This record gives sequence, structure tokens and C-alpha cells, in this order.
Amino acid sequence: MKRIAIDMDEVITDAIGRFAEWYKRDFDIEFTEEQLSSKRFRDLIQPEHKDFIRDYVFHDDFFKELAIIPGSKEVIRDLHEKYEIFITTAAMEFPNSLLPKVKWLKDHFPYISWTNIVFCGDKSIINADYLIDDNVRHFKRFIGQGVLFTASHNLKEDWDVRVNNWQEVREMFL
Amino acid sequence: MKRIAIDMDEVITDAIGRFAEWYKRDFDIEFTEEQLSSKRFRDLIQPEHKDFIRDYVFHDDFFKELAIIPGSKEVIRDLHEKYEIFITTAAMEFPNSLLPKVKWLKDHFPYISWTNIVFCGDKSIINADYLIDDNVRHFKRFIGQGVLFTASHNLKEDWDVRVNNWQEVREMFL
Repeated sequence: MKRIAIDMDEVITDAIGRFAEWYKRDFDIEFTEEQLSSKRFRDLIQPEHKDFIRDYVFHDDFFKELAIIPGSKEVIRDLHEKYEIFITTAAMEFPNSLLPKVKWLKDHFPYISWTNIVFCGDKSIINADYLIDDNVRHFKRFIGQGVLFTASHNLKEDWDVRVNNWQEVREMFL
Repeated sequence: MKRIAIDMDEVITDAIGRFAEWYKRDFDIEFTEEQLSSKRFRDLIQPEHKDFIRDYVFHDDFFKELAIIPGSKEVIRDLHEKYEIFITTAAMEFPNSLLPKVKWLKDHFPYISWTNIVFCGDKSIINADYLIDDNVRHFKRFIGQGVLFTASHNLKEDWDVRVNNWQEVREMFL
């Protein structure tokens, strides 16, 4: 059985959605879906807000109950029948994200066992056939095939294997 | 640079020491070092205490400030010069251990970056040349060479590459 490793933020969890939600709360400025998907969040906001926004991720509530990326629930459920699925997230950068991420996975993907959840940093430590991730930096030393999941911050990245949404993941693997 | 993955409990952290400490606190029964290193802890205690003891690991304080396994600090510091070192622990089984483990590593191994810490379950996900671990089950599907670190619970395990202490790890790798 081939093994697929799947990242969390911007692949199955909508962290940018949380940034947008808190930015509206704090500065009363709202962005459209179109804006959020076509430009990096840091290029959308007022330059003088950048330092303030950067600290959001260190707040205990930031990673709690994030929205789910559309299609991920259904497609991963089907992938799970034919592949070994591991969730592999660079969570060690933000220790405050560890427990919210455990809870989020239990809520949204209860059939993914604790044995198949990996919190790491450098993803070259992952032994899998495929890695679906929004950061090309994780592919550089990865042992398998990196599959770039489109996010606003990687639109200009040059990578030969790219999927734009979960429907395209389904088409690639099933 | 070759990569060594190193487990935590019973390899660098003395979790059995915590069991013994709490067992003495709760039942006023103490074991010698000799007893602790020659018999499984569950075979030392009174049979009627087994269920009670099993719950220790779910207590928030269990993984806090564990003692360090002698020699690990000095040998890992030297290994770090010649190998890529990753700490790979099956911490996902006990979510209450996640934050204490992050803190413990920061206290005892401050030079090990967050990028090189991995909390996982099934260690076949680890891509490394060597895995130093006290559980042979992790070696079954491991991509590299498993190195069994002796602990009281694995004395009778049959595994061809075994080290009895950190001095023997030094001799093997340096």
C-alpha cells in the first residue's frame, strides 16, 4: 500500500481564514474570497499592521477550531481506503498549536489513528511516497514525490506536480 | 551526513523512574536500581495495583521534569557534531505528554532545533539511517537500522543490534 503524507495548514485547515477573521475583528477590514485566494495575506494588509498580525500565531486560540478546506474531508476518506494516510504538519514551530491540532484531527478525521499523526519541523524526516503540502521547501530533501497544494502564497512557485484543490487530488490518486 | 533518530522514554528520559517515584508516594513501596533494571516494572509491583499504575501516564504531571538517562546528554552532544540528530518519540499516544516533552527537550538539549523534533506514533514514517529505541516493534517496518537500547522490558527481546547504555552508543557511532 502506497503512503500519502498530508500537511495541515492551507491544505486541510484554513489558517488564512483565521488571519482574515481576526484582522477584521481588530481593524474592521474585510477581504473577499477572491482577494484571499489570489494574493498573499501579508500583501493584502496595511503595511503598518504586519508586525501585529505576525503575532497572531502565538496566541493560544489561533489554531482552535479552524475551518476545514473544502473537499478534504470527502477525498481523504476515500484515499484512506486505498492508501496509508499520515497527517504530517510542521507543528513544532508553534507549540501552542499542538493540542488544538490533536483535537481538530479528532473532530474532523476521527478514523485517522494517533499512530498516523506526525508533528515535525523538517519534513525530510518523513518516509512516504507522496507529500501533499503547500510549501515547496519541504520537497527539497523529501524522499518521495512532493505534490504542491495551491495556496495564495505559492501561486508563483515553480513545481511540476501541483494540485489546485481536493477534486484534483482525487483525480490524481483515485 | 548520516541521520540518527533517537527515542525519548527509556532512552533519554527516565519514565520508569517516575513510575517508581509515584508508586513509592502512593503505596510506600520502594525498589532498588538493581530491581528496576532487571525486571519489568509491571512485574515488580503488587498485581492488585496494576490498573491504578496504568493511569499514571494520563496524569498531566507524569511527563514533567523526568530524570535524564545517564550519559545521553554528553554522547548526543558529540554525535551532533558528526550526524544529523532527530528526536523521534511516539508522543501522540499521550497528548498530555506533548508540551512537557517540548519543554524537557528545550531544557536538556537546547541545541536541538524544533525542526529536528518529531512527535509521531508509527515510526515507520521516520526516514533516518538509524533509530535508537527501546521498542523493537518500531523496527519492524523502519527504513534504516534499528538499534535496541536496553531497558528492563526488552531484556529478553531478540534483536541483533543492541546497546546497553550511552557509552555503548558512543562506541558504535564515534
